Amino acid sequence: MNTSGKNILGFNFSSQGETVFFAKNPATGYKLETAYHEAIPKEIDEAITLAENAFTLYREKTGEEKALFLETIAEELFQIEEGLVGLCAQETGLPDGRLKGELGRTTGQLKLFATVLRNGSWVDARVDTADSNRKPFPKPDIRQMQIALGPVGVFGASNFPLAFSVAGGDTASALAAGCTVVVKAHPAHPGTSELVGKAIIAAAKRCNMPDGVFSLVQGASIAVGQAIVRNPLIKAIGFTGSFRGGKALFDEAAKREEPIPVYAEMGSVNPVFVLPGILKKNHQTLAEGLSNSVQLGAGQFCTNPGITVLPKLTESNLFEDTLKNSVAVSESSTMLTESIQDAYNRNLEKLKTKREVASISIGKKADGQAQGVAEILSVSANHFLKDKEMEEEVFGPSTLLVRTEDKSEIMDVAKSLNGHLTATVHGTQEDLEEYADLLKILERKVGRLLLNGFPTGVEVCHSMVHGGPFPATTDARMTSVGTAAITRFTRPICFQNYPDSLLPDELKAENPLNILRIENGNYVLP
Amino acid sequence: MNTSGKNILGFNFSSQGETVFFAKNPATGYKLETAYHEAIPKEIDEAITLAENAFTLYREKTGEEKALFLETIAEELFQIEEGLVGLCAQETGLPDGRLKGELGRTTGQLKLFATVLRNGSWVDARVDTADSNRKPFPKPDIRQMQIALGPVGVFGASNFPLAFSVAGGDTASALAAGCTVVVKAHPAHPGTSELVGKAIIAAAKRCNMPDGVFSLVQGASIAVGQAIVRNPLIKAIGFTGSFRGGKALFDEAAKREEPIPVYAEMGSVNPVFVLPGILKKNHQTLAEGLSNSVQLGAGQFCTNPGITVLPKLTESNLFEDTLKNSVAVSESSTMLTESIQDAYNRNLEKLKTKREVASISIGKKADGQAQGVAEILSVSANHFLKDKEMEEEVFGPSTLLVRTEDKSEIMDVAKSLNGHLTATVHGTQEDLEEYADLLKILERKVGRLLLNGFPTGVEVCHSMVHGGPFPATTDARMTSVGTAAITRFTRPICFQNYPDSLLPDELKAENPLNILRIENGNYVLP
Repeated sequence: MNTSGKNILGFNFSSQGETVFFAKNPATGYKLETAYHEAIPKEIDEAITLAENAFTLYREKTGEEKALFLETIAEELFQIEEGLVGLCAQETGLPDGRLKGELGRTTGQLKLFATVLRNGSWVDARVDTADSNRKPFPKPDIRQMQIALGPVGVFGASNFPLAFSVAGGDTASALAAGCTVVVKAHPAHPGTSELVGKAIIAAAKRCNMPDGVFSLVQGASIAVGQAIVRNPLIKAIGFTGSFRGGKALFDEAAKREEPIPVYAEMGSVNPVFVLPGILKKNHQTLAEGLSNSVQLGAGQFCTNPGITVLPKLTESNLFEDTLKNSVAVSESSTMLTESIQDAYNRNLEKLKTKREVASISIGKKADGQAQGVAEILSVSANHFLKDKEMEEEVFGPSTLLVRTEDKSEIMDVAKSLNGHLTATVHGTQEDLEEYADLLKILERKVGRLLLNGFPTGVEVCHSMVHGGPFPATTDARMTSVGTAAITRFTRPICFQNYPDSLLPDELKAENPLNILRIENGNYVLP
Repeated sequence: MNTSGKNILGFNFSSQGETVFFAKNPATGYKLETAYHEAIPKEIDEAITLAENAFTLYREKTGEEKALFLETIAEELFQIEEGLVGLCAQETGLPDGRLKGELGRTTGQLKLFATVLRNGSWVDARVDTADSNRKPFPKPDIRQMQIALGPVGVFGASNFPLAFSVAGGDTASALAAGCTVVVKAHPAHPGTSELVGKAIIAAAKRCNMPDGVFSLVQGASIAVGQAIVRNPLIKAIGFTGSFRGGKALFDEAAKREEPIPVYAEMGSVNPVFVLPGILKKNHQTLAEGLSNSVQLGAGQFCTNPGITVLPKLTESNLFEDTLKNSVAVSESSTMLTESIQDAYNRNLEKLKTKREVASISIGKKADGQAQGVAEILSVSANHFLKDKEMEEEVFGPSTLLVRTEDKSEIMDVAKSLNGHLTATVHGTQEDLEEYADLLKILERKVGRLLLNGFPTGVEVCHSMVHGGPFPATTDARMTSVGTAAITRFTRPICFQNYPDSLLPDELKAENPLNILRIENGNYVLP
């Protein structure tokens, strides 16, 4: 499909800047045809001013109207599936099957938020009715609900060009919350971004949404993102990417005259603990499962298992052998960009220069550019505990085996961990009883704790937490995947002594939307 | 009642520092007897280390156990009511009646959180059950709930020595959430703080709570607070006080290696809009109501109405006359501290040096030190709109009348406002219909919007929002009063593929706690 290379400012296209950049096919190293115009400050301000003006209208839309809008975006995306997947594959090197799956995930996510809006109970409505006879003072009528924050800046991620990008979780949840959105497209897939942006605009027009409900700005330089964060009309930021990028946005936002929330999901190492009992029983399938999880999507998942903690057992050697063999015969695949592949190699080298770290298996390099070759490293827990650098993310298909001597060393490794998105424990029932303390320690470190599985694969559902303590994210109180993500972009307000006619429907006496409410302290479902 | 002047580090008392300070009776200017030992870094670290160790035990307590603890604190406070109110009156100059009311509010607040814990539904439990037949991938079992963040630092406020101090809203909600608490006592009422701290410790012992669940450190210098915010074991901060103090804590927390949330409620000017229709009808009672609200507690309420926006009408003059007369005959009362009284006078002078601002009425100065004399200033909206300094808080019994020329000027004033805790509109039904846009503008500026009342008086209930956009607070997504305050100190976690026996009760298949849950997207009340 053709792309224009222009920025999308509300319902208009704009290419006022002189700086252009190109997408590159990472598998071939060749650059693609379209020149993308980096947004200039004037264009960014225009997008944000449109978003502010649109917000005063969009925030008044009913749940039904917003639900239809999200569903229409999903419809528009399905209509361009073939062209979109084709261009996206060129820009990212990801296989068609994966991209089709990702598109399905994205449209499913939009539809899931539509069900949340139709249900309506997400606003946490609270009603306390008046009591004029109360002593010593009469009790006033007070009613609370969540309302949208304002225009939101979203930064597309490179590793999920559909699910965590222009119409991904951040945009879907912000639009669901009632916020307008200005997306900064990731420069690794500008064409994909433009196509998705156009689909959103088409949906906005079909649904009579205001001009400015959505905009998309292009840019390869850091200045574009900074201009978004610094604009006083922007009220929150969603970001998925590197620690460095996310932390820079966080710092920038904290320095504003009016600080704003930054939801930066910055990835993590997702430690996997294999306990003795299960290792004895299932060392082979565990090793194969780990090998698959490590290599999924060329290791380019936020939840990739970068550390695997092993007990000291005869079977640990068998586990390692299986893992080594599985990786040794594996073929590399194309990474998303040359710079990601460079960083992967650089980070591996950095680890391997440490005397205590050994490389114990390495995969086969396939033809093509930007190949991410799988690699397994190992280190003793004793050394791991002395060097915090070993806990840093190596974004790519590798894991560091941490060999422990005994139970107390396993516990020490757990206690030493920073915040991560996930932690995984493999164990039999007896293991898990014996290591109950391990689970308690890990609870304080992560957003998702999983047993006898692998962390790659983040289910979009009501219960998902894709988040976790710093440095996994800049705000552990929130999730960036799942329906709970909507409250990132809202705040509570209460109305005191309002006549029924002036209250929002969510808070009216008759509860016309039939939503869950807390009425005088009681949870009431119609 | 006697006080020791010592810091309370878990279950022990400590006075290792050599710096001491004294409380002062603001009404007499005389200092009280007890020397309070400022906590030294070692003591602060000890309190926080105890809080961390206690947290691993306290967070496992059931809702029922925590509820009993909160109720026992309330009981212990009631038992010392007479002595506590007596000492507090000496330290703050506040009348006994007010302090008894405040104690009732504080104990009521503790009991209200106990009911929230017994109900148990506050944890936002979400259950998505597995579906092994789902295509293309099986659906895993995932369950989410809120868990406590860790040790919390609380800064007592001076203006509500019981309700927003040692056992106030921040401590109550943090303990309810499952967090341990280290309080920095406000140096204006150190003895009151010690007595309340001892009551909490007595309750902790009676309820078998771990040593370190609560600590209290004293200090008159900024270093004590800084040491709390900088300690890496502290996971959140609660604060009520000045903009300068709150913003400094926010900046300090953002600079930490691991940034943490700071909930600083920094007060605001709480604009009151009087619309034409109601002014014609009720100018006299409105003026009297405003006079009372402005002078309540010597104007030392976060929600004190500091700006009153008036339309241009004959009746506006009558309103002003009533207000002037009411204030002119009013007697001043003692402010909380000499420095608050100094700042009040200084801020008034700063406003009055502006050529466009007139002082139109001033109250009578009563005998005694630190008297806060009521004063009414006025300015034209035209000038108000040109000078943002006029929107700054003058903490004390004054309000600035902003005289508008027409409806569009009323709207312009509303649009120009920063974030505030509250906004108030007085209007007839017709006024409110005609000024529907005004309400919509104000919705984006405040945490609480009230009609035909006065903002002083913050009801402790489920629907209250005591918060609002910056600069009223540093986190508009939260409230510091009301039961929703509990989620300031929690974050979500999800458990994937857990056997029922290992899940927290809140998430077990049979829902043994009988709480509200979102089960596969449906809200389910047992």
